[in-house]
Amino acid sequence: MNAAQDLYPSRVEKEENILERVDPIVYGRPEPAREHALSDAQMAFFEDNGYLVLPDWLPDMVDPVREELTHLKRKLKGREELVLEPDSGNLRSIFAVHEHSEMIAEVARHPKVLNLVQQILGSDVYIMQSRVNIKPAFRGKSFPWHSDFETWHVEDGMPRMRAVTAWLMLDENTEFNGPLYVIPGSHKHFVSCEGKTEQDNHKQSLRQQMAGVPSPESIEALTEKGLKGIYGKPGTLVIHECNLLHGSPDNISPWPRSIAMFVFNSVENRNQRPFSGLRPRPDYLSSSSQEPVRTASEET
Amino acid sequence: MNAAQDLYPSRVEKEENILERVDPIVYGRPEPAREHALSDAQMAFFEDNGYLVLPDWLPDMVDPVREELTHLKRKLKGREELVLEPDSGNLRSIFAVHEHSEMIAEVARHPKVLNLVQQILGSDVYIMQSRVNIKPAFRGKSFPWHSDFETWHVEDGMPRMRAVTAWLMLDENTEFNGPLYVIPGSHKHFVSCEGKTEQDNHKQSLRQQMAGVPSPESIEALTEKGLKGIYGKPGTLVIHECNLLHGSPDNISPWPRSIAMFVFNSVENRNQRPFSGLRPRPDYLSSSSQEPVRTASEET
Repeated sequence: MNAAQDLYPSRVEKEENILERVDPIVYGRPEPAREHALSDAQMAFFEDNGYLVLPDWLPDMVDPVREELTHLKRKLKGREELVLEPDSGNLRSIFAVHEHSEMIAEVARHPKVLNLVQQILGSDVYIMQSRVNIKPAFRGKSFPWHSDFETWHVEDGMPRMRAVTAWLMLDENTEFNGPLYVIPGSHKHFVSCEGKTEQDNHKQSLRQQMAGVPSPESIEALTEKGLKGIYGKPGTLVIHECNLLHGSPDNISPWPRSIAMFVFNSVENRNQRPFSGLRPRPDYLSSSSQEPVRTASEET
Repeated sequence: MNAAQDLYPSRVEKEENILERVDPIVYGRPEPAREHALSDAQMAFFEDNGYLVLPDWLPDMVDPVREELTHLKRKLKGREELVLEPDSGNLRSIFAVHEHSEMIAEVARHPKVLNLVQQILGSDVYIMQSRVNIKPAFRGKSFPWHSDFETWHVEDGMPRMRAVTAWLMLDENTEFNGPLYVIPGSHKHFVSCEGKTEQDNHKQSLRQQMAGVPSPESIEALTEKGLKGIYGKPGTLVIHECNLLHGSPDNISPWPRSIAMFVFNSVENRNQRPFSGLRPRPDYLSSSSQEPVRTASEET
C-alpha cells in the first residue's frame, strides 16, 4: 500500500486539511425490501445527516443485555477488553461483547439491526468491533471530537467509508448525562489530522483520545448547521455513519449512561494493514474474524 | 457567634446531613407593584423551583457589556479579580465588574433587575458580589454541584437565606456549551457538608470547588424531580435563589458561554463574620461596601 493509494491520509505529518468524501454514504441493495427495512425518508435523512435515531426499537433487549454485563464484568476481570476511567478507575468499556456473550451476539444478529445495516451498506457485513460503554454518574469523562473512521483507517486499515455503528441505549440518554453530540453532515468530509500515530496508541486513546482530534478551526468550519444531541429512552437504536464527527461532554448528573455498540463493516471493505504502517490493534478492537454475520432465520 | 446560633452549619467536621430551610423564599413587599414587577404566577414559580428565566429581558445591554469586557481585561490584568482556567490558563471570571465599570453597574441598577430583586427579597439590597463568567469554547471546565449560600455562609458570613443572583446571558446558553444545570426545589433544603474549610480556600475553589460539594447520595436524594438546564438567547435574565443547588458540565462545543452575574443580598441580611471562624474572603468576593443600591430614578 503506497501513499498514492490512500484516499484518506491522516496523521501523515502534514498540516490539517478538510478533504471531500469520495465514497457513497448509502450503498443500497438491489433486492426487494425486507422486514424492518428503512423507509426512503429514513434513508434520505441518514444520507444527509449521517445518523438515524429509532426510538422504542428493541426495548425487550435492554434488561437481558444489562444482566449479561454483570456476568461479563466478572468473566473478563483483568483482561484488556475491560477499559477503566482515567481518573477514577471506574469501568468505562467492555469490548468484544458479542464474542463473550451469546445473548449479546443475538442483538447484533437481530433482523431489526442487521437488515437495516445491510440495507445501508448494500452487502453482507461482519462485526469489526463490539463494546458496551458505561459513562458513570457524577464522574464520566468527556470525549473530544473525532471520526471513528479516521482511527479505523489509520490504526486498523479500514480502506473506505463503508461501515456503520448500530448502538442500543441501555439507560435513558438525556441532555444531562454526558450524551453523544454529533455534527450532522460532517460525514461528507474527511478531516486529515496533523501529527503521527504512536505504536500502541490505543492504550492511551481508549481512555483519552489525543491523536486524530480535529483542530478547533476544523470543528468550527463543520458546525455551521449546529450540533445535535442524541437522546432517547432505553431500547432506542441509533445508526451512526462511520465518518460522522462526534464527541461527548462529561457526566455530572446522578444518572449513568450505558450503551451497547456494534461496528458493522461491509465484507467488500474488510480491514487490511493499518495505513499508519504500524502493527494492527488487538483483535478485540478490529476483529480478525471477518465472516459475514447472518440473522437467525438466514442461518437455518 | 456560637454554634447554637448557626442555623445552617456546614463543614463543621460532622457527617453530611440534609436540613430543612427555615427562612422564607419570597419575602414580598407590602407596597403597590412597581414597573416590571413579576406576576403572581412568576413569583409562585420562583418560590417552588428556586429560579426564574426571563427571555429577551435586556437584549440592548448585551453588546455594551461585551465591549466593556475588552477594556476590563486590560484594566485588571494581573489582579486577583481575574481568575484563570485550571489547565489552559484561559480567562474564566472577572470579579467586581460593577465596581470597575460604570456601564456594568448600570445593569445592576436597571429597574428590570433591581425592582424584581427587591420584590422577592422584600427590602433594599446591596451588591455583595458581581462577576462575568466566561466558559471558553472547547476547553471550559465543568463545575460540581453546590449551593452558593453554603459558601457565602461559611466563608463570607451571610447569616440567612435572603439573597438572589441575577444573571444576564451574554452568549446564547444552549444544551451544548456547558450550561448551568439546576436542581429545581433543592433551595428548600440545606446540605450540611462534611469536612472543614481551609484558610484562603477561595484560591482553590474559584478554579475547582472541593469543599462544600454535597455527596452523590445527597444529590440523588434531591433530584427526584429531575434536573433543569437553563438555556436562552443573549439578553435573557435569570433570577437564581441563593441556596439552589447547581452545577455545569464542561464545554466541548465551538461556542463560548459568557454571563454577567450580580449577587444581591438584603440589607437586613448583611454579611457578618464568616461562620468558619476564619478571616473573611477578599472584598471582590464579599463586598465590604453594603450600601443599598438604587435605580437611577430613585437616586434623582
